[in-house]
Amino acid sequence: MSVTAAKGFSATGGPVGIKGSGRSDMAIVLADAPVVTAAVFTQNKAAAAPVQISRAHLKATGNMSRGVVLTSGNANAATGAAGLAAATTITHEVAQAVDAADNEILICQTGLIGIPFPIDALEGAIAPLANTLGSSEDDGNRAAVAIMTTDTFAKEVLVVGDGFVVGAMAKGAAMLEPNMATMLSVITTDAEVSQEELAAMLIDAVGPSFNSLIVDGATSTNDTVIALASGLAGPVDNAALRAALAKVCLTLAEFMAFDAEGATKAVRIKVTGAKSDNEAHQGARKVANSLLVKCSLNGEDPYWGRVLSEVATAGIDCDPLLTTISYGGTVVSRAGEAAVHDHDLVAAHMKERWILLEIDLGLGSGVGSVLTTDLGHGYIDENRTTS
Amino acid sequence: MSVTAAKGFSATGGPVGIKGSGRSDMAIVLADAPVVTAAVFTQNKAAAAPVQISRAHLKATGNMSRGVVLTSGNANAATGAAGLAAATTITHEVAQAVDAADNEILICQTGLIGIPFPIDALEGAIAPLANTLGSSEDDGNRAAVAIMTTDTFAKEVLVVGDGFVVGAMAKGAAMLEPNMATMLSVITTDAEVSQEELAAMLIDAVGPSFNSLIVDGATSTNDTVIALASGLAGPVDNAALRAALAKVCLTLAEFMAFDAEGATKAVRIKVTGAKSDNEAHQGARKVANSLLVKCSLNGEDPYWGRVLSEVATAGIDCDPLLTTISYGGTVVSRAGEAAVHDHDLVAAHMKERWILLEIDLGLGSGVGSVLTTDLGHGYIDENRTTS
Repeated sequence: MSVTAAKGFSATGGPVGIKGSGRSDMAIVLADAPVVTAAVFTQNKAAAAPVQISRAHLKATGNMSRGVVLTSGNANAATGAAGLAAATTITHEVAQAVDAADNEILICQTGLIGIPFPIDALEGAIAPLANTLGSSEDDGNRAAVAIMTTDTFAKEVLVVGDGFVVGAMAKGAAMLEPNMATMLSVITTDAEVSQEELAAMLIDAVGPSFNSLIVDGATSTNDTVIALASGLAGPVDNAALRAALAKVCLTLAEFMAFDAEGATKAVRIKVTGAKSDNEAHQGARKVANSLLVKCSLNGEDPYWGRVLSEVATAGIDCDPLLTTISYGGTVVSRAGEAAVHDHDLVAAHMKERWILLEIDLGLGSGVGSVLTTDLGHGYIDENRTTS
Repeated sequence: MSVTAAKGFSATGGPVGIKGSGRSDMAIVLADAPVVTAAVFTQNKAAAAPVQISRAHLKATGNMSRGVVLTSGNANAATGAAGLAAATTITHEVAQAVDAADNEILICQTGLIGIPFPIDALEGAIAPLANTLGSSEDDGNRAAVAIMTTDTFAKEVLVVGDGFVVGAMAKGAAMLEPNMATMLSVITTDAEVSQEELAAMLIDAVGPSFNSLIVDGATSTNDTVIALASGLAGPVDNAALRAALAKVCLTLAEFMAFDAEGATKAVRIKVTGAKSDNEAHQGARKVANSLLVKCSLNGEDPYWGRVLSEVATAGIDCDPLLTTISYGGTVVSRAGEAAVHDHDLVAAHMKERWILLEIDLGLGSGVGSVLTTDLGHGYIDENRTTS
């Protein structure tokens, strides 16, 4: 499954020496020939070297590329001219190994920020890794494993359409919020699609998935989603392809919420009845970013008072007297005060791994929803120190 | 010291039955006669019953009041009509006991949201408490103790001016962010000042103090700061009074940062070199709200990469190549990458209780600063469950 399922793609992954542990830290996803490419990058003004390089390469080639090299263990962010040189060296060596032009290779990197990238450690390791490229399920899996940082499982997904497939891999973990997480994802398809259509479909797919995933309010320096379309399956129904891309992105975002650093809960927060979809989304984001709400979720405590307090400070139209709050479909607060309800039912829902928190504002027809997580000791323990 | 130091004020505090523990849970701060009053309230659209009542009373009296009753143990927020009735009953009983009009008594409440207020538990307890009003330092201290929730120490401050004094008490703890914390504060002065001047001075004092304190990004339903001026010290230098009010508020905000729920660090984040003061403040707020930065502070790790990543996503003008980041005055990053520095010096600073994190954007003359805290297990443990 995953990135090697679509016709015309191969992949690999293995250790090249970035991680001190010797664990797998480089993946390559390659198309047999230059293919139509679309990408969405972080909005962070301190965009990492690989983001700068990939943007430049796509511009130079008119969004045609041979593939992507991904590394884990060092973000190569805030690393100055040496970082740019390191990313350039990596794309060059991959291009040499697979007989591509330098700017046909894109690059994604993930790991710690501000640590000089250990380019010397990679010497002589890239060409041998490229020799292991293959199109089996195992090859795709090795690529997905190579991009893991604090992920606890490799994230792969495949959607089989009518005459085409869309496969993808991703890494998530933390720093997940609007406008993307420290998340990398490569999506491959054999559908025939124009670059403009692919780019539009990718943006539509990213909005309700990766860009609606809020773990800790941080927008990373390295976030990148790249979609490659080989066209080898021929023309397809565009609506079906659009739906497949959306499904792939949403599933990966759910994997990321489920596997967020230190999280014990994955939580869907839905706001309905807002004045507009935008206001609904803004309200959902405000609740998802609340440390107090996140702590309550960790404690399996349906403390709706904090939820109400958060939507009431979200900068959106909101009247507590019209607001209804539910956990797992059970109304716990109505008209700005406690509602009589089955406490055992709610307590049982709060113990589940997936929590559904719904807020109806009773004002209009605007709806919006985000994925988030709880906040517990685990998150802090993973992020207290870099050592 | 504190609220009883200014001429014309008395105070008291003691248990009236709100807290199940039997601990002190009601304070009264009283002026001998109606006095000039200014207040700043939460911007939360789900403002608690006491906030609604106090706003109405000030409007009815043209900002003249006899004093404030404060309770802890239940926020009386999201409690509907019964909550409004409870707050009205409390102000009425205090007014009766001290021979004031009902609307000359303001009310502040703090505690859990959404729990019906146990008004019946207070029956017969308010008049006896009012009988203990006094003007000694001990009376002021009992009032400050009565408003504590998860505070670990009573927060009182006194500034002695030229011919006048400004004293104050506050409770802080968590839910501290822009536009106020779950924080209550009562400030008394014997300076003679017009209501308009007092209101303007209070707003100016609150901006760089309570409204620049960010613990967890939550704006509570109950935040209130009330200033009372008896005028008994006669006319004073307005600039001196303004400075005294600012000093009182800043000191209380620093106490709150120092005593924030579960915090092990109080942190001043200063942004300089921004395009404007507003942009500097926005940048400082973004960094202060970062869970990743807060975790690093908890781990005493000067991880400047996260700081850079946050200011670069603050929605302000920012160029990593012009940005300089320092901890405790030692530059750790310059021009978007690591700077050679004395690691031992920075490590020693990170171990201190007060941390100074400075970010210079190198773009203009805008400056802004906020107070914040680290994020550790303690915060989560205090906020996981309400039980």
